[in-house]
Amino acid sequence: MNYKMIFNTLGKIFIILAFLMFVPIVVALIYNESIIPFLIPIIGLILIGMPLVLMRIKDKSLYAKEGFVIVALVWIVISLIGCTPFLISKTIPNFIDAFFETVSGFSTTGASVLNLSTTEISLPKSIMFWRTFTHWIGGMGVLVLLLAIMPSDGNSMHLYRAEAPGPSASKLVSKIRKTATILYLIYLGLSVLMVLFLLIGKVNLYESLAIMFSTAGTGGFSVYGDSIAHYNSAYIDIVVSVFMLMFGLNFNVFYLILIGKFAKAFKSEEVLTYLIIILFSTFAIAINIVNITGSFWLSLRYALFQTGAFITTTGFVTADFVNWPAFSQAILLILSIIGACGGSTGGGMKISRMIILTKSSAKDIKQNLRARSVNCIMYENEPLDRSVERNVRTFLILWLAIVIVSTLLISLDGFAKGDLYTNFATVITHIGNVGPAISKQIGSYGSFVGYNTFSKIILCLDMLIGRLEIFPIIILFTPRTWKRGK
Amino acid sequence: MNYKMIFNTLGKIFIILAFLMFVPIVVALIYNESIIPFLIPIIGLILIGMPLVLMRIKDKSLYAKEGFVIVALVWIVISLIGCTPFLISKTIPNFIDAFFETVSGFSTTGASVLNLSTTEISLPKSIMFWRTFTHWIGGMGVLVLLLAIMPSDGNSMHLYRAEAPGPSASKLVSKIRKTATILYLIYLGLSVLMVLFLLIGKVNLYESLAIMFSTAGTGGFSVYGDSIAHYNSAYIDIVVSVFMLMFGLNFNVFYLILIGKFAKAFKSEEVLTYLIIILFSTFAIAINIVNITGSFWLSLRYALFQTGAFITTTGFVTADFVNWPAFSQAILLILSIIGACGGSTGGGMKISRMIILTKSSAKDIKQNLRARSVNCIMYENEPLDRSVERNVRTFLILWLAIVIVSTLLISLDGFAKGDLYTNFATVITHIGNVGPAISKQIGSYGSFVGYNTFSKIILCLDMLIGRLEIFPIIILFTPRTWKRGK
Repeated sequence: MNYKMIFNTLGKIFIILAFLMFVPIVVALIYNESIIPFLIPIIGLILIGMPLVLMRIKDKSLYAKEGFVIVALVWIVISLIGCTPFLISKTIPNFIDAFFETVSGFSTTGASVLNLSTTEISLPKSIMFWRTFTHWIGGMGVLVLLLAIMPSDGNSMHLYRAEAPGPSASKLVSKIRKTATILYLIYLGLSVLMVLFLLIGKVNLYESLAIMFSTAGTGGFSVYGDSIAHYNSAYIDIVVSVFMLMFGLNFNVFYLILIGKFAKAFKSEEVLTYLIIILFSTFAIAINIVNITGSFWLSLRYALFQTGAFITTTGFVTADFVNWPAFSQAILLILSIIGACGGSTGGGMKISRMIILTKSSAKDIKQNLRARSVNCIMYENEPLDRSVERNVRTFLILWLAIVIVSTLLISLDGFAKGDLYTNFATVITHIGNVGPAISKQIGSYGSFVGYNTFSKIILCLDMLIGRLEIFPIIILFTPRTWKRGK
Repeated sequence: MNYKMIFNTLGKIFIILAFLMFVPIVVALIYNESIIPFLIPIIGLILIGMPLVLMRIKDKSLYAKEGFVIVALVWIVISLIGCTPFLISKTIPNFIDAFFETVSGFSTTGASVLNLSTTEISLPKSIMFWRTFTHWIGGMGVLVLLLAIMPSDGNSMHLYRAEAPGPSASKLVSKIRKTATILYLIYLGLSVLMVLFLLIGKVNLYESLAIMFSTAGTGGFSVYGDSIAHYNSAYIDIVVSVFMLMFGLNFNVFYLILIGKFAKAFKSEEVLTYLIIILFSTFAIAINIVNITGSFWLSLRYALFQTGAFITTTGFVTADFVNWPAFSQAILLILSIIGACGGSTGGGMKISRMIILTKSSAKDIKQNLRARSVNCIMYENEPLDRSVERNVRTFLILWLAIVIVSTLLISLDGFAKGDLYTNFATVITHIGNVGPAISKQIGSYGSFVGYNTFSKIILCLDMLIGRLEIFPIIILFTPRTWKRGK
C-alpha cells in the first residue's frame, strides 16, 4: 500500500474543498450572514492539506487497490469536513445528523434529517446554499474534479475508474485529464443552461441555483419542505423533468453531440433502453393514477416528473406518491433500483448493468438447452469483456447482500412503528441515492431524523456504498487490503 | 423435440397419479364419504394414460431440453387433474381457486384460498386428506417416484436433474433408479417415524397423517384454520420443529448415516451452515420477542418453531409472527428466501446456492485487488464446476426478475388495500413455497382468496417456478424451445 500517495491525494482534495467552500462565503457576504461556519473548516483544510500536497514522494505508482482505498477515504473525509458548517452554525447541532445530511449531499441522495418549512427558507441562506452545493460537487465527483484541474502523475486511471459510475469506465478521449475536463465542462454548460430556463420561469437566482445544484447532481435536496411541489407550476415541473432526465444520460451522449456524431449518440443501447423505460413508466403511471388527479394531463405531468425523479434517483417530489396505487409505487421503486445510465450523475444500479444482466441470463438459458454453445455477449455493438460481465453479476450479489443486512440492522430500531417494509424502502432509497422512501410511514416529503444513531451510521454507509458502487467501501473494510506485502 | 417420449412419460405419470388417488378413496370409505370425487379423475387418468404408456416408441432418447419440458408439463398437468376432487365435491367450486389450492399442495407451498374453521375439520375428511397428501407427493417429487418404481430407459438423468432441488443433482449411487428408490425409502421411513411420535403425543391417526404429510413435504397445509397453534402443546411443537428441520436436510445426510459414514454426514458445509443459521435465528428471535411472550422459554419454543417453519419453507404457524418486531420479521423473511438444503424437500433458493454465491463474490473481490489470480471455488471440499457457479448466479438473476415482475403484476390488483409490501411478501411466500405471507394485511393465518383470477394465475406460476427452480418453467415458455431442429 502506497500510503504517501494516499495522503498526498487526500491533501490535494483538501485544497480543492477549501476553494469550493469559498463559494458559500460569497453567499454569506451577500446576505449579511456569518462567514465563520465556512472560514474555520477552510483554515483547517489548508493547514492540513498544504503539507500533504508538498511532501516529497519517490514512488508515485498507484494500483487498483490504492485507487479504491483513496476514493473511499476521500468521500468519507470530505463528508466529515463538509458537515462542520452545519455544526458551527448550530443549524444541525447533532454530529451524526450533520454527518448524515452531508453524506446525503455529496452522495447526491437528498435524504434529509431536517423538517423544513414549506413557506420560507428556514436556514441561513449560506448554509442552505452549501447544503445543495454538495449535490453539485458530488454529482460529477471530487476525484474527477481533481483529475481535471491538477496535473496528475502516476496511474490516475485507477482513481478515475474507482469513482466513475457504471460497469466500465470509458474515457472520452485518450487522456484522463482531458476526459475529466470535458466532463466538467459539459456539466457546467448544462448547469448554466438550466439556471437560465429557471430564471425565465421567474424563479429567483438563489432558488434557481439551488434547484439546479440538486438536479445536476441528481440529488434532491430542496430549500422548502415541499420540494418542487412548492412552485406548483407546470413550466417548472417540465423544465426540472427534462433536465433531470438529461443529467441521467450517459455523458458520452453529450460529447458525441458536441463533436457532431448525432447518429452514434442515439444508437446507444443504454440510451434507447433508458428512453423506453421512461416512456413506458410515464404512461403506465399516468393511466394508473388518473382516478386520483382527475385529469389525464395532470396525471401525465406528475407521472413524468416522478418517473424522472426516481429513475435518475434525484428524488424530487411534486405529488404525494405514497398514496398512489401499489402498481405505480412498484414502478417507482423498481425505477429507483435500476437507476440512470452509467457515466451520468444518477445513482441506482445503472441501465447498462441491467442490460448486461439480462443478456447474460438469456445466454445461460440458451446454454442450458444446447450443451456447448459458448458465446460472448454483445453490448453497444462490441463483444463484452467477460470480466465486466462477471463483475456486474458480483455487483448484484453484493448489492443484495448489503440491502438485506442493512434492512435487518436498521430493523433493530423501533422507528416507523417497527415497520419492516419502511426499513426496506429506507435502505433502498439510501443505497440508490434517491432520497424519499416510498412508504406511508415516512411520507412523500418525510425526513429520516427519527432513526437512531446506529441506523443513521448504517444509512450513511449505504449512501456511500451506493454512490461509489460498492467496491471501494467493501475493499476499504476488507482486512486483506491492509495486510503487508499483499 | 421427442414428442412421443414426452407423451409416454406423461402417460406413466397419469397411471401413478391414478394409484395415488386410490388412497383418499380408502379414507372416504372409512368415513362413509362419497368416492365419486376421486373415482372420476382416476377413470379419466387410466383411460388417457394407458394408450400413452403402451404406444410404441422407436427413439427413446431424452435430452436436457425434453427433461425440462417434461418436468414442467407434468407438474402443470397433475395440478389440473389433482384439483378435480375439490371441484366435483364442490368444496372449492371455483376452478381457479381449486387449481391454486392444488398447485399450492403439490409445490408444497401451503398457501390456501380456504378459511378453515379453528374448531372442527370443515371439509369432508377424504378431501382434506387429499389436500395434505398432495404435499407428500410433491415433496419428494412425482418424477423421482416414477424413476423409482418404473423401469426407465433412455437418458433418465435429465428428468432427475430437472426435478431435483439444489444447484446440482447428486446421485447417491451410480444408478438413477436405485438413487430414487433409496430417496423414497428414507422419505417413507422418516414419515412413519414422525407419525409414531405424533401418536405418542395423543394426536389421532388421521390428524397425525395430515401433519406428517405437510411436514414431510415441507408444505404447511393444516386441517384447522389455526395451523399447529391449534394443539397448543410444547411436545407437538418440538416434534414438528425437529421433523421440519430434518426434512429440510440434504437427504445425502440420511443416506450417509444409513451406510455408517457419520463423520462425513456432518462435515458437509451445507449442513453446518444450515445448523448455524437455525441456531443464530432461533436465539436472535427469541431475545427479540421476549417482551411479547413474557417468558424466555416460550420465546425459544416459538422462535425455534417459526425458524424451522420458514427456513424449511413449511409455513406452519404457532405464533402470530406478523405482530413480532420488524427485526424478527426480517429474519423470517430472509430465512424463507434462503430456504433449506439442496436435495431436501424444502423450498427457497437453498443454502448451497447461498454458499456458492458468497464464495463466488469473495473470489471476485479478491480478483479486483490482484489483477490476475484466477482460482476455482471449493465447495464441499471439491473444486466446483464453473458451469454450476455460473448457473447459480443466473438462477439468482432470474429469481429476482420473476419476483419483481410478479409483484408488479399482482399490484394491478386492489387486494389488501393495494399495499405494495403485502404484494411483495405474497410473491416471496409463493415463489419460496412457504405459505403464509409476513404481512399484517394478510395475517399469520391468512388466506389468499381475495386476490383476483389474474393474480392467482401469476401466483400459481410462481409456486411452480419455485418448486421446479425456475429453469423448467422458463424453458417451457421460451419460444425457442419449440422451434424445429433446434
